[in-house]
Amino acid sequence: MTSSWVPDIDPASDFSLANIPFGIISTAAEPEPHAAVAIGSFALDLKVFAANTDLDKIFPGISGLAEAFSQPTLNTFAEMGRAVHRQVRSALQDLLSTATIYPGVLRDNATLRSQTLLPLSTVTMHLPMAIGDYTDFYAGYHHAYAVGAMFRGPENALQPNYLHLPVGYHGRASSVVVSGTPIRRPVGQILPDPAAGGPKQPVTEPSRKLDIELELGCFVARGNKMGAPVPLDQAEEHIFGYVLLNDWSARDVQTWEYVPLGPFNGKNFATTISPWVVLADALEPFRARGIENKTELQGYLREAREESVFDIKLEVDLTTAEGDTTTIGRTSSKYLIWSFPQMIAHHTLGGCPLRPGDLLGSGTISGPGGVDERGSLLEMTENGKKQVLLAGMDARTFLKDGDTITLRGYCEEVGARVGFGQCRGRIYSAVQM
Amino acid sequence: MTSSWVPDIDPASDFSLANIPFGIISTAAEPEPHAAVAIGSFALDLKVFAANTDLDKIFPGISGLAEAFSQPTLNTFAEMGRAVHRQVRSALQDLLSTATIYPGVLRDNATLRSQTLLPLSTVTMHLPMAIGDYTDFYAGYHHAYAVGAMFRGPENALQPNYLHLPVGYHGRASSVVVSGTPIRRPVGQILPDPAAGGPKQPVTEPSRKLDIELELGCFVARGNKMGAPVPLDQAEEHIFGYVLLNDWSARDVQTWEYVPLGPFNGKNFATTISPWVVLADALEPFRARGIENKTELQGYLREAREESVFDIKLEVDLTTAEGDTTTIGRTSSKYLIWSFPQMIAHHTLGGCPLRPGDLLGSGTISGPGGVDERGSLLEMTENGKKQVLLAGMDARTFLKDGDTITLRGYCEEVGARVGFGQCRGRIYSAVQM
Ligand SMILES: [Ca+2]
Ligand SMILES: [Ca+2]
Ligand SMILES: [Mg+2]
Ligand SMILES: [Mg+2]
Ligand code: NI
Repeated sequence: MTSSWVPDIDPASDFSLANIPFGIISTAAEPEPHAAVAIGSFALDLKVFAANTDLDKIFPGISGLAEAFSQPTLNTFAEMGRAVHRQVRSALQDLLSTATIYPGVLRDNATLRSQTLLPLSTVTMHLPMAIGDYTDFYAGYHHAYAVGAMFRGPENALQPNYLHLPVGYHGRASSVVVSGTPIRRPVGQILPDPAAGGPKQPVTEPSRKLDIELELGCFVARGNKMGAPVPLDQAEEHIFGYVLLNDWSARDVQTWEYVPLGPFNGKNFATTISPWVVLADALEPFRARGIENKTELQGYLREAREESVFDIKLEVDLTTAEGDTTTIGRTSSKYLIWSFPQMIAHHTLGGCPLRPGDLLGSGTISGPGGVDERGSLLEMTENGKKQVLLAGMDARTFLKDGDTITLRGYCEEVGARVGFGQCRGRIYSAVQM
Repeated sequence: MTSSWVPDIDPASDFSLANIPFGIISTAAEPEPHAAVAIGSFALDLKVFAANTDLDKIFPGISGLAEAFSQPTLNTFAEMGRAVHRQVRSALQDLLSTATIYPGVLRDNATLRSQTLLPLSTVTMHLPMAIGDYTDFYAGYHHAYAVGAMFRGPENALQPNYLHLPVGYHGRASSVVVSGTPIRRPVGQILPDPAAGGPKQPVTEPSRKLDIELELGCFVARGNKMGAPVPLDQAEEHIFGYVLLNDWSARDVQTWEYVPLGPFNGKNFATTISPWVVLADALEPFRARGIENKTELQGYLREAREESVFDIKLEVDLTTAEGDTTTIGRTSSKYLIWSFPQMIAHHTLGGCPLRPGDLLGSGTISGPGGVDERGSLLEMTENGKKQVLLAGMDARTFLKDGDTITLRGYCEEVGARVGFGQCRGRIYSAVQM
């Protein structure tokens, strides 16, 4: 990878020249949310850049970019399609390279540089997309197996449909929030002792089993018409990019409510995503094989490509109110048994329309190893039976008020790291009833 | 009720002066979708009306109405709140009355009358709201009981949580369509013989168990902030109005997919709603008691008001491709065990934010009587074991291609009927795989 003229890019930066993730920022100078890309420790303000640059020269043949970059979400840009995303990312990589073919546009233009290249610490990040619908899948094989074995034993760990189709459910779009948004502990209806026989009498209390789910999120670029399924071999064209996703979960609420129609209040209070969308093209060099599925798949789910997922290193940090941080989980996004193209082909099989900006969650991702490879406290603590030991001589079964969870994700290649930045949320006390 | 000067209002019209439902229309003269109300067999074009009227005189103290009525959805108007809806509906009732206090505004203004009062047959109806999230509940007691008894026997018909909380799940907002939109039979993954033992091998085929669900839909007016639950006694203030809702369901797809995370492709291919939103105030005279729940409810679900639901007569017509129509179901929206305020209080208990335009479905509504009071073919035919006899010497277990389903709903009072018009969809053949 060539080098960048942007000052002080840490070789360990998630936002190397190989990445160029897109996000929505606001600044003191431009307080209306608008588009940017991240490079090293800077945001490049694309709205201001577009207003001061001959875009036809830099992005020949693409119209509407200045308008798209002024929008408060990336939906318009996403809908322009993969070819446009590829060309724009590639042109920005050139502009930000030391050996750029257009040195006068930005590299040697001190005025425009000072207007557009803003320290990340000075910009406010917003939700990158207007999310019409959010769907959460369950494709993390080791998570599904571990949770199933916990509740039904190893023989019945996976439901009969699990290896035949990407199980998923509709989530709540309105409560998807950007990294840094405070998370209030939900109050919910809870059965104090679910295993007890006799009549079931719930209570209404703050959740005592507030958990995380480490997931990869995928944003839809172009949608499909109602009644027109997306074939598997065209699904990649419908993907805009990826974010880290923490599907906060109240396990005690979920246990009582979820039969027979699935999770509801146990999930819909909040889902946090990282602010920078890593474009699908940026992850191409990091393809990997997913979990092997020996089931004879239905035709619409049979994938020609073997390397259908990505090897993104994923980490979960827990920081206590006292400020002590412990990395409690380390895994990889390769531990999926269904790829996002398979999820899209299944989602649209019956004709369900996807729209630009729709969000798909992978499901919780856990590795095959010990408790330190798990993407949820449910697994790490065997549903509260064991404790996770923390720095500061602290310990957890589930989250305490004041805890902060930070997800990180990155594909490593020295000086050309493609990472996601942080997906962070701090827990605040429940509303007084 | 006073009489209207609008010509030829049928005493059996759903759109009497007592109703004044709001919708989104487009016309030859005004092709961009915008707001209207229905009166008799006419639409009153509110955009054109607002552009030619002194609104301050008719709706004193309300600002922004002309802008709201020019929008392609009713969301802006809905967000103005119940007091505004009440005042606007009441003023329109006066303007359309024979004894209006402002005869010059419309009654005696032939020019404006001809510009704004448009035969319903000449206007195109659109989805009335931009729906951020769609939640489907399961509050139809007789439906839940009948379906539970069918699959688990009468002793275990209701799940342990059913009488303690309004069970619901997140639906798919992108596939909610307005009455008249063609419905394509979904292809799905199906287990040919779910009851058989041994290994489960699904097939991918057009659904053979395409069904309807007769529901009442409720639109949210004002939302709530994330983390701030809506107390039961304030929930009415968050309701804009109601529509009929047909939650098309592929039973064979649903059966195979729904464990453990709930319905997905069995539901997300289409949900049809009626185009005219009957405002909450228009239904006030038709309050009724819901199904009595003897369970000791949690405090947040305890309702002071006894008449917490509405007695809307509901009917389901099936019209064959040959054109023969049979009314296959007749019931009432009073057969709910949870009210919409209870659903809202539960939905937001953990802090889930509702937004203006969000749609809540009641769940399938069935009466306590025989098969002719049921809101789904699943119940009418005992999951395909029996046939529903139709006019034209035809019969059905589930829907055939070419069938049209029409839902109707109305509160009867001679000359002051408050009805919903039609919620209609015709089934087209599945996509060739
Ligand atoms: Ca999840
Ligand atoms: Ca339903
Ligand atoms: Mg969540
Ligand atoms: Mg539906
Ligand atoms: Ni949604």
